[in-house]
Amino acid sequence: MTSPKRQRLGPAQRRAQLIALGVQALGTHALDEISIESIADQAGVTRALVFHYFKSKQEFQTAILQAASEHMMEITTPDLSLPPLEILRSTLNAYIDYVGRNPHVYIAMIRGETSNVPAMKESVDATRSRLAERILEMLGRFGLDSGPLLEFAVRGWLAFVEEVVIRWLTDSEEVTREQLLELLTGALPGVVMAPLLGDQGMLEQMFPGLPDRAGEQEQAAG
Amino acid sequence: MTSPKRQRLGPAQRRAQLIALGVQALGTHALDEISIESIADQAGVTRALVFHYFKSKQEFQTAILQAASEHMMEITTPDLSLPPLEILRSTLNAYIDYVGRNPHVYIAMIRGETSNVPAMKESVDATRSRLAERILEMLGRFGLDSGPLLEFAVRGWLAFVEEVVIRWLTDSEEVTREQLLELLTGALPGVVMAPLLGDQGMLEQMFPGLPDRAGEQEQAAG
Repeated sequence: MTSPKRQRLGPAQRRAQLIALGVQALGTHALDEISIESIADQAGVTRALVFHYFKSKQEFQTAILQAASEHMMEITTPDLSLPPLEILRSTLNAYIDYVGRNPHVYIAMIRGETSNVPAMKESVDATRSRLAERILEMLGRFGLDSGPLLEFAVRGWLAFVEEVVIRWLTDSEEVTREQLLELLTGALPGVVMAPLLGDQGMLEQMFPGLPDRAGEQEQAAG
Repeated sequence: MTSPKRQRLGPAQRRAQLIALGVQALGTHALDEISIESIADQAGVTRALVFHYFKSKQEFQTAILQAASEHMMEITTPDLSLPPLEILRSTLNAYIDYVGRNPHVYIAMIRGETSNVPAMKESVDATRSRLAERILEMLGRFGLDSGPLLEFAVRGWLAFVEEVVIRWLTDSEEVTREQLLELLTGALPGVVMAPLLGDQGMLEQMFPGLPDRAGEQEQAAG
């Protein structure tokens, strides 16, 4: 009788299985807390066999992180049949779902648990670059020419999204998921048009009634 | 004959002198590269005396970082006699000057050199919180009520600023200082009004001629 756990797999399949179990463990564990023993046990193999596929725990962790990033890229693939803001909104919606299911790994990835391991830091940075390229490519479709300034805006927006999402995951019950989604969605056009918004006239168009002096100062002057 | 280096100072003055020399060294050295020997030498005291004032190199580094943050807060104090966008622009202008003079410490503070030392990480986070509070207070003067969503937007904008400024310091000769300043300045109103910008109609007002489908998809549909 063969236990399903002990099924014979080819090397590529076994490697993929171990990574998949690692990614699954991220739903409940921080990357550093994932136990090789537990993964080996679930796969019905020995700890030594895991280390046959991955030279070190770090190499295994990096592979897990890469697979998780790949999965995130897939589920946030833009749906080009939608209007521009809906492409953005639906992508961010999937992104929030994803990080909500994997808050541990998300926070660890973004806030340093991985940043001292060069291979992991590189993996996170590579994912950011892929996201930035994807967004720039999308903006290009809508007539915005890519250039260093637009790239800065997009990279800055990704940092904005990371910061805001982490805050939402860790310390707010006061901001609804819907409000979060609208903030993230509108912030991209917000920063893309930022070079135009440093103008009082433009701003007044957006915020009618904006005073042109700080309240206190007005009193002092009056 | 007393060397000016060997002047007798009271404990508080000596401590302040050592910190000031540390802050000065940040102009040319990363925080981790600041040599206690060199600081002691400049102050005309022994290495042991430095460790009389600071229990460890980390404690000294944390004190340097706090003093540098304090200095940054001072030089970026908002000038309330200006119109709102000019307050923001002049503050960011001083901020860019500051980080341009201290790129090492800025990058180190923001990108992890310090993030594994809890006291230093706390110092950086405390500075971010003070900046956020200051901005929220300013926005309040212009009629924007503080609340969790606005706080998220401001904290996200600070992350945006850090990301963009680091990119500008490290890998761009293609974005001018003026362009950088305008991007950072306009991004604050951009993210503050973000919850309104996820609307196609609003966006069309800002970007006349924006297509409502991605180019390729239109062709496929046509």
